This record gives sequence, C-alpha cells and structure tokens, in this order.
Amino acid sequence: MTRILAVDVHDVRFPTAAAGDGSDAVNRGDYSATYVELKTDGPLAGAGFTFTNGRGNEITCAAVRALAHHVTGRTLDELISAPLAFSRRLTADEQLRWLGPEKGVIHMAAGAVVNAVWDLRAKQAGKPLWRLLAELPTDELVACVDFRHISDALTPAEAASILDKGLAGQQERLEVIRRDGFPSYTTSVGWLGYPDDKVRGLARAAYAQGWRAMKMKVGGDIADDVRRAGLIRAEIGPEALLMMDANQVWDVDEAIANMSRLAAADPYWIEEPTHADDVLGHARIQRAVAPVRVATGEVAANRVIFKQLLQAGAIGVMQVDACRVSGVGEVLAELLMAAKFGVPVCPHAGGVGLCELVQHLAIFDFLRIGTSLDGRMIEYVDHLHEHFTDPVRTRDGRYLLPEQPGYSATMRPASIAEFAFPDGPAWR
Amino acid sequence: MTRILAVDVHDVRFPTAAAGDGSDAVNRGDYSATYVELKTDGPLAGAGFTFTNGRGNEITCAAVRALAHHVTGRTLDELISAPLAFSRRLTADEQLRWLGPEKGVIHMAAGAVVNAVWDLRAKQAGKPLWRLLAELPTDELVACVDFRHISDALTPAEAASILDKGLAGQQERLEVIRRDGFPSYTTSVGWLGYPDDKVRGLARAAYAQGWRAMKMKVGGDIADDVRRAGLIRAEIGPEALLMMDANQVWDVDEAIANMSRLAAADPYWIEEPTHADDVLGHARIQRAVAPVRVATGEVAANRVIFKQLLQAGAIGVMQVDACRVSGVGEVLAELLMAAKFGVPVCPHAGGVGLCELVQHLAIFDFLRIGTSLDGRMIEYVDHLHEHFTDPVRTRDGRYLLPEQPGYSATMRPASIAEFAFPDGPAWR
Repeated sequence: MTRILAVDVHDVRFPTAAAGDGSDAVNRGDYSATYVELKTDGPLAGAGFTFTNGRGNEITCAAVRALAHHVTGRTLDELISAPLAFSRRLTADEQLRWLGPEKGVIHMAAGAVVNAVWDLRAKQAGKPLWRLLAELPTDELVACVDFRHISDALTPAEAASILDKGLAGQQERLEVIRRDGFPSYTTSVGWLGYPDDKVRGLARAAYAQGWRAMKMKVGGDIADDVRRAGLIRAEIGPEALLMMDANQVWDVDEAIANMSRLAAADPYWIEEPTHADDVLGHARIQRAVAPVRVATGEVAANRVIFKQLLQAGAIGVMQVDACRVSGVGEVLAELLMAAKFGVPVCPHAGGVGLCELVQHLAIFDFLRIGTSLDGRMIEYVDHLHEHFTDPVRTRDGRYLLPEQPGYSATMRPASIAEFAFPDGPAWR
Repeated sequence: MTRILAVDVHDVRFPTAAAGDGSDAVNRGDYSATYVELKTDGPLAGAGFTFTNGRGNEITCAAVRALAHHVTGRTLDELISAPLAFSRRLTADEQLRWLGPEKGVIHMAAGAVVNAVWDLRAKQAGKPLWRLLAELPTDELVACVDFRHISDALTPAEAASILDKGLAGQQERLEVIRRDGFPSYTTSVGWLGYPDDKVRGLARAAYAQGWRAMKMKVGGDIADDVRRAGLIRAEIGPEALLMMDANQVWDVDEAIANMSRLAAADPYWIEEPTHADDVLGHARIQRAVAPVRVATGEVAANRVIFKQLLQAGAIGVMQVDACRVSGVGEVLAELLMAAKFGVPVCPHAGGVGLCELVQHLAIFDFLRIGTSLDGRMIEYVDHLHEHFTDPVRTRDGRYLLPEQPGYSATMRPASIAEFAFPDGPAWR
C-alpha cells in the first residue's frame, strides 16, 4: 500500500532560445518543464511533467500546487481503483474548473499530476508504461476514460469493442517493434532560425542516418518557405516524406493559398495550418489541400476539440501530446476516437521529454488500439534527452522499445539542480 | 503624457461559497478577482480585473505578473497609438503563448491588463468607456481588432462598414437609454443551491420589482429541473421570459433529450447546454431545440471559438464576457462578428464586477454596432456591487447609464484590504 506523502514541483528551464533551436513561426523559447515528483512512503517516487516554453513556467508550477491537495495523502490503490473520480477531481474541481475549463495552464498542470501517478503505477508494477497499458483488462482501461462530452462520438461499449479486438495478435505486433523499432520522423532539419546551408546539411545528414521522413517549419515569408522546401526535397529525393509545420501562423484562406505554392515540394502533411481552436477552418483547409493531410494536436486543448476535428473530417493525422491534455486517461480517449474514425495517430514530441513519454503511447496504440503501423510515426527531436534517466534510444530513424519500469519521465537529479529556475547554476 | 510605472496585482476573494450563492451544476466557489492596478506618474490609475471562482486566483495573479513587463514603463499614448501591437505582445508572446494559446489562465490575465489600460484611457478622456468607444473614429476602432484567424469571417472593410453605419442615429439611441435604461434579466432567482420556497419567493419578488426576464439553473436531476421550471413559470406568468442555464453539464444527446422535457416551461434560451468548446455539438443542439435559442459565451475562450459558433449557426444569442477574452479589443471583434451574422449579444455578468464592466459593452454595442434592442439584455446578479466605486444602478429591471469616467472597474480600497487573500481580515 503506497501512500503519496507530498507533491514536489520543480521549475526546470533549459536555455535553448539563444541557439535558435525550436524556433518556428510563433514560438521561440527556453524549453522548460513543470516537473512533478510524487514522494511516497515507499521506495518509489512518481515523475510527471508538462512542457512549457520558458517564461510562465512558474504559472504552471503554481497550478500544480493548486491541484496537489487532490493527491497528497491518498494511496496509489485508491487513485487506481477509481480513476475517473481521481481525474475529475482535477479537471472538474468546482473552483478551479473556471480557469479552463479543461484547457491551458490548469489542464496542463492536471496532465503533469496524472502522468506522475501513472509513472508511479507502472514502476510499482515493474513494467514500462506501454506494457502496463497493453496488458490491462479492457474494463480497467475503459474505466480510465472520461466519456463526458464525447459520448456522441464514442460510447463505452464502442471503446470496449476496440480494446477487445486489440488483444488479438498483440504478441506478433510486439515482436515487430522489438525487431524493427517504431517508425519515426525527425524535426531537427528545418527550424526557421537555421540558414540554408545548415538546413541542407542537416537534411543530408538525417537521410544518411536512415531517416526517410522529416519535417520543416514553414510560416515565414512564403517565397522563403518555398525555396527551403525545394532545398530539402532536392537533398532527400522524391521518395522520402517531407512534412511541413506552420505553427498556426496562417489564416484559413492564407493556408489554402500558401499550400498551393508549397505543393511543388510534395508535402506529406501540413501541420497546424491555422489557429488550433479552429475546427471548421481545419475542415475547410483539409478539403482544399487533399490529398495532402492536415495534421494537428500539439496544442489541441482537450478531447472535445479532438472529437470535433474527427467529426468534421478536419484532419488526416492526429498528433496527440502527452501532457497538454490531462494525462494518460485523456490521451486514451483520443486514441480510441482516432481508431473509431480511422485516423492514424502520430504523437507530438520534442520539447523537454516529450519523446520519452509519447513512445509509450504510440507503442500501446499499435499493440492494443490502432493495431497498424500504416501512417504511424513518432516525432523525434534530438534535444535534451541526456537529462532523463531512461532516455529514448533510436536506430536507423526508429525508436527502440523502452524497457525500464515507468513512463520514462524521471529527470536526473543533477539536471534538475543545474537547471532549476531561477536559482540553479545554469541561470545564476 | 501618462507613463505606467507599475502593475500592482491583488488577489481579492469574497467568501460566497458557504451561502450557496452562485452554485450551479458545475461551479461553487468564492467569487474572486485578479485585480490589476496600473500606477502612473499622473493623478490617475487604471483598474482592470479578471473574475475567478476562488481557489486558483493566485494562478491568474501569477499570470498577470508574467505579462506585466509588456506594460510597465510604457506611456499610455504608446499603447493607444498601436493597439494591435500592444495586445499581441500579450497574446502572442513567443514564450507565454504556449500556455494558451489564447485561452484559459494566460488569456484571462491578458484581459485584466488590457481592460486596465482601457479604464485608464477612458478616465484620462474624462468619459465613461461606452462613450469613449461610441465616439471613436471608425479607423481607430478597427485598429483595435486583431483580425488574425478571423479574416475568413470578418474583414477590416466589413468591420469599418458596420461601424460607419452605426454613426447614424447614435444620438437618438442614446436618448432611449438615457430615458428607459438598458434591458436586462436577473439570474438571482434559481441557483441550484436554493430550496423550492426560496426559488418561488425570489421569482415573485423579482417580478414585483419589474423584471420580465429571469434565468434559472438546470443540470441537476432532470425531474427536479422540470419541477423548479414549472414553479417559476407559475409565478411569473406566460409572458415573462424564462431562461435556463445548464453550465455545460450535459452531453450533446442528453441536452437534446432534456430540453424536450423542459420545453413545457417555454424556455427563451438554453445556455451552455454542453461543453463550451463543442461548436459542432452546440450546432446540433440548436437545430434540435429551435425555436428555443442556444446561448453561450461566458467561458468561450477567444474570438476563434465565437467565429465558429457563428459560422456553424450554433447559437441564437452570443454571451460575451468582459474579461474571459483578452479585453476590450477582442470583445470588439466579437461584437462585430455577431452583428455581421445577425446574432444578438447578451453579455455574461454576475461574479465580481462583471455587471459593472459589461454594461459599457452592451451600451456601446447598441449605440454603434448592433443598433437594436431587439433580443438584447444584460445579465444582472445582485451580488458584490457595493465593493465598487461606481457600482451599477438599475431601475425596474433595467440598467441605468453609467456616467463616471472609466470602465467602472475600480474597487474600493477598503474592500481590497478587507478581502485580500489570504491575509485580509475576512480570511484570517
């Protein structure tokens, strides 16, 4: 019987802004984590976090502190045995809900807390999270989903049917991943801050390392975007996939016009072509740019937005994020809806530790829900993995199966100390 | 030349939860304000706030502090002369935007800051905000609107045309308000926490005071809702308007089913029938419950959500909130879109000081944008007005024209001191 004694919150920031890493049309920041540590009366601690872009990380830290009382003093068994009651205490708190509802700072903080509980649960079970989830009985998984406000798109019975079907062939699928790794693509080639020569060199190097799918940022000057797209396409040849990411900078009609110019470089998808809340706008863009896929999700606030993107036929690729929504339970709802609507999930990663988290989600999705690798890829960015005790491992452009117990969320104590804001040595 | 020297933030909370005031299907809190005071080098100070529900008010206070550097040290003239650049510094900050984007805590904090600047501007002009806005040249008003991500629904030229047309007959409309006041409705009759006798008595009293439109909360047990609706309808007679508010508690199909049972009480509108982010869900509900109107907006995150509600034909009443979105400029975008789509605006009020703010917006809308009183009403809740230096005044169920310079946002210093959290006498 493990009891959670305290919720420690760390404001951890890495000074990435100066290098131009992670720069796109709207974001330029110091990659940061609102890092949550659940201290227990046993030998294990739970780790979870939400990713932020630097300034304001203290706000999500404050939000975690506001939610901590829903966890402190409770046993892990209590939280596991009534998962919906637990997550609703965080997402439907009768005073805190007003601050979202279910979006932005307060929801991201809930995600950090929920993820830390799942990390603790997986560690206690002695399994990596993907395995814990893949092996859970269907009714226990269904019990983790909050169907409120999505029952018009997915019922508990439909969810159970998807999860039951996913039991067949699970072992064979696992062998595929064990042998080949999980497909992925790299985002390290074309940040807006990089000059042409660097972009060309990075594209060539990525191809040489085995990557056959890579993503560039667009949304700057359109002529510049078209030129850079041509450079990358020339380096990687006609067969490799080239994805484009506008980070929401365009208006709807502008997105449609710009994509007609970028079509020459044969994009595989256009990511975040407009404001993340614009379901109807994404639907119009998807109709206009097909067969190019519209992809979005890294800042989609919650399962209600994902539900509508699917209902409206607005996306061809769903990019769930592990800690923008309220953690594993809400991601589960999203994976199930994607399966029902037949849309592949390619999780958003990068930032701090997002690769570490989403590999578990993608592998679980393949083993139990989506059951196919067709169109599935995990984003990969080669930043900051060294700060985690169980960092991702890749080979020839594919993720290798994580083996350690937990959610791969645990940060090295030395990194937490070094990059603590504002008092760590890196910031003094 | 007024220069802003400092942004003071006060965490002010009123202990309303215990009384059951403000209790509905999902919220029960201590009505609170993240209160912003702009200290200047002149005799005037700007006041603005965002409303919260108690716990977590410290998070929006932290968000205001994170935004304050965009205002501190600048002159009022500088902010006024480039209003879009000013609001984008708050809403598209390259690090803080990730925390929304444009939603929840960080966006509410931006609203508090922007509103404080408008309060200061109106005070400096010696006019109540409604008059300042109504008398501004069209191009200056258009310059305050951020058309990014709404240009597919409203162009600057369309906005200018609406505002130009609104100049005609302005004086006559002002005389109507001066003579009769602005129509409103009361929400004080049917909170879920109140017993039947109290509901009946309050409905009777409100009718006697002149109210011919009143709102009840629904979303508890449906049989109970139906009974309470019948009680109120019996008290107020067949002619008075009865609005219902479910505070997002229902799923889409549940909303449609429950409204068919509540139809017996002849509701005028159903407010927040489901999750605030569910544009497609609201559209389905609106088609099913017509001619009853669907109303929403008090937690609609931003202009992109409002745009879609209008594009989808999802609402018959738009309920803008003064400080959920990023202040006067974003509300202006919403009023203009509502006018273009022919949907009346009935602002959300209640909480702390929301009545004080939205009266300015509704009167300005009538004078310059919507230009009609048809279907227009300002929400009225009889709570906490005594804490403001320029409280709303009503007569026979109508708001009287505010006359003091500013946005009526200034709180009495004694109230700030008394209800400061956690150290004020009220909380010790």
